[in-house]
Amino acid sequence: MQRSPIQHCRNCGAAVSYRLPDDGDTKLRAVCPACHTVHYENPLNVVGTVPVWGDTGEQVLLCKRNIEPRKGKWTLPAGFMELNETTAEGAARETDEEAGAQFEMGPIFTLMNVARVGQVHFYYRARLLSTQFNPGTETMEAQLFTEAEIPWDEIAFRTVKETLEHYFADRRSGQFGFHTLDIA
Amino acid sequence: MQRSPIQHCRNCGAAVSYRLPDDGDTKLRAVCPACHTVHYENPLNVVGTVPVWGDTGEQVLLCKRNIEPRKGKWTLPAGFMELNETTAEGAARETDEEAGAQFEMGPIFTLMNVARVGQVHFYYRARLLSTQFNPGTETMEAQLFTEAEIPWDEIAFRTVKETLEHYFADRRSGQFGFHTLDIA
Repeated sequence: MQRSPIQHCRNCGAAVSYRLPDDGDTKLRAVCPACHTVHYENPLNVVGTVPVWGDTGEQVLLCKRNIEPRKGKWTLPAGFMELNETTAEGAARETDEEAGAQFEMGPIFTLMNVARVGQVHFYYRARLLSTQFNPGTETMEAQLFTEAEIPWDEIAFRTVKETLEHYFADRRSGQFGFHTLDIA
Repeated sequence: MQRSPIQHCRNCGAAVSYRLPDDGDTKLRAVCPACHTVHYENPLNVVGTVPVWGDTGEQVLLCKRNIEPRKGKWTLPAGFMELNETTAEGAARETDEEAGAQFEMGPIFTLMNVARVGQVHFYYRARLLSTQFNPGTETMEAQLFTEAEIPWDEIAFRTVKETLEHYFADRRSGQFGFHTLDIA
């Protein structure tokens, strides 16, 4: 995360100033006085999965975070989308990196805007193919939970809690949908 | 758009080098040798609408681009998502800026990955409330088109063409869905 103000031009290193660009833009941007580059800052995408196990998807895989923020709290496998991948590819990569799970990707399940922090979160359903996990260094442990076992007070992020709640509600209803939410 | 390599640190202005960071990251990043900041580059979101007019949404509003790339070609109103807005708010802002249209926002309609250029595109359906348009400087003209009138060979972007094709196909079927696509 780098959300502190831009101080220097990425092209030439000169100190920038925040002002309206000359192209009619109505927002203050970091503009370089030397090479005239206008620097834009844009939202980040977070991509992850809801990996489930069992004939009716009764267990969900959560990862105990080994890094800040929210170290020691439980999360679905997720992280920042990278260049040169799709949202689904990024979600699969994070599931591999954080849980070391074997799985098949399913459809997109939640799309959540967290405008306050400039993020959009995408969660895909995924079907686990084994219960052997090999978590990476960002995860203390990876564990399956039924709905009754989910540590609701120890969930790392609001977007994860919302996604889990929608997952179990849809599972009870017998029909999985696609859910869009704005998180204040 | 700034997709040329990062040359200088945004915090201190020192020349960066691309290398693996010390935190176990497996991708080359622009790392500052002076202040040790790691600079990440991430996909950009493009947000827009399919603004329609008529009892059955038989006409769609397109804008003739007054800026590069694809100056003179037709597009749906869309642009880069900004910080501090949701995808839907960004789509509405772009529709206001580029077409000066009066409209009501509807649900999300297409979600398209364009991994080759590091972009994710989101289009929302929107219902026009009048046929008076007041396009901004980025638009030469804003005009309504029926399916038969759409200038298919003069559409600016593949994502716009795909979204229009899905719109008219869904309209013919009588049921509007939500469509995810990967654009190669």
